[in-house]
Amino acid sequence: MGFDITILGTGSAIPTKDRFLSGQVVNHDEHLFLIDCGEGTQMQLRRYKKSLNRISHVFISHLHADHYLGLPGLLSSMDLLGRVTPLTIFAPKGLDEFIHFNFKISSATPRFPITFVHTQTQGKMLLLENEKLQVFSFPLKHRVPCTGFIFAEKQGKPKFDKRMLGRYFITPEEIIAIKEGADYTAPDGTFFPNSEVTIAPAKPCSYAYCSDTLYLPHLASELQHIDVLYHEATFAHDLSERAKATFHTTATEAAQLASEARVGQLVLGHFSSRYTDPEVLAEEARQIFKNTAKGYEGMVISLRP
Amino acid sequence: MGFDITILGTGSAIPTKDRFLSGQVVNHDEHLFLIDCGEGTQMQLRRYKKSLNRISHVFISHLHADHYLGLPGLLSSMDLLGRVTPLTIFAPKGLDEFIHFNFKISSATPRFPITFVHTQTQGKMLLLENEKLQVFSFPLKHRVPCTGFIFAEKQGKPKFDKRMLGRYFITPEEIIAIKEGADYTAPDGTFFPNSEVTIAPAKPCSYAYCSDTLYLPHLASELQHIDVLYHEATFAHDLSERAKATFHTTATEAAQLASEARVGQLVLGHFSSRYTDPEVLAEEARQIFKNTAKGYEGMVISLRP
Repeated sequence: MGFDITILGTGSAIPTKDRFLSGQVVNHDEHLFLIDCGEGTQMQLRRYKKSLNRISHVFISHLHADHYLGLPGLLSSMDLLGRVTPLTIFAPKGLDEFIHFNFKISSATPRFPITFVHTQTQGKMLLLENEKLQVFSFPLKHRVPCTGFIFAEKQGKPKFDKRMLGRYFITPEEIIAIKEGADYTAPDGTFFPNSEVTIAPAKPCSYAYCSDTLYLPHLASELQHIDVLYHEATFAHDLSERAKATFHTTATEAAQLASEARVGQLVLGHFSSRYTDPEVLAEEARQIFKNTAKGYEGMVISLRP
Repeated sequence: MGFDITILGTGSAIPTKDRFLSGQVVNHDEHLFLIDCGEGTQMQLRRYKKSLNRISHVFISHLHADHYLGLPGLLSSMDLLGRVTPLTIFAPKGLDEFIHFNFKISSATPRFPITFVHTQTQGKMLLLENEKLQVFSFPLKHRVPCTGFIFAEKQGKPKFDKRMLGRYFITPEEIIAIKEGADYTAPDGTFFPNSEVTIAPAKPCSYAYCSDTLYLPHLASELQHIDVLYHEATFAHDLSERAKATFHTTATEAAQLASEARVGQLVLGHFSSRYTDPEVLAEEARQIFKNTAKGYEGMVISLRP
């Protein structure tokens, strides 16, 4: 079962020659989810060979132009490519009206169903759930209502160890009970605790996305042991006053959070256009949290190597 | 005095790996004008080193998504870059509301003045005029109201030939009269017809932009002797029925128009994503109009070589 993230854009506010605006694709078990959708996201999806029409859900963190202006064009292209499957968009209130206004003036309403779900900033909330994955939003602190997102695999159930079938005749009902945690006593009286007749499930992996936000130390408890944390690092720490004034985070602060949350890896993004090579930001963060990577366009983060 | 066009995007409807959506910059005498603004236009402006904040006027042909969705992001970036100079946007009615709606939901209204002028489709209309240039709109025929644009230099006045000052003492008043067309009689009685004391002005150049439109043979009279005609060629002629049904033009039809209008050069653009290399479209057009070029991202067309 795959679980990887492809970063489409690591720029903030203004795109540069090398950096697109916020956008990334989470691929979990062949389900594609899009997080944020700055201008140019559809071009990046094509560049990195992510089928537009395999995206089932879009998650927009907040309504600043560099995080949603790619959405009208993406929806238009999905429609032109013949999409019929429904799309759900999680976003702050207001985006739905904007999108519908655009359908009206462009005389083009997509033929596939679009559902908007308004995100809230009161606390951590479950947005979406399937058999294997849960997606949560949680409040960030920016100049406008803003949420981060957590993609957390569920703890899988143990699998029945089929090698047992070579030794005993075991009924389907017994197998179901074993999968639910039962021990097994063979017809010859041999007792097998559950752990000896099952294969432990893979450790569930988790991914968190934090952009844009003031540095929030209290997030460390929310994000404990997240495998990969993508966090904005708009500025280096010498501009911490500017970061605070604009409700952004410095590379040092992102690393402090990663360290306190004991995450597996920190990936930085949402770089100010003043940094020609944001490697300086990753270098700054590594002083505090060693396993820090600089995000870049086309980067693929595999949570299950 | 420079007069050149930089093409930012030659794709239609859906961007491809290689083609951006409609957008081009007209540079006339160091005034920058933007024609159409598909998603990604601001990235292309940066790539081709066109200063966003030197653009004074934007001309939007029609309200299909691939021609205007780059505008909200462009305006946002202009503002973030500190623009204070006014911007005028010529566009069909409706775009102004969309743009203002976007300012509202993104909580960011630019600090520079923006004036919207609604384009009309009743006939050829003068939109803009300065000392050296006139910009006209003229109706095209598409599924929604759509106009083309003509950038036509004015016939300059003859310049006074300063070499005359080496031979005679000529008063400023006499020079003004000469510039206005007067002949000159020297103090020694020598008569100089105006043409002998002036330098003829450069031949005025003109550029026309036609996208998107059904093939309109009657445009040949409107576009007579245009130096460069940029015309959409969404399809090859084997898809002429599809072109007609979608109110587009084939490469053959664009060439017929160029031929009948006796333009200097035809540049094709707005290619359907089905053509991996639109050179096939230019090749088709050349069978009818030899001086045809395939438009491409980054192409610079100099009207004054």
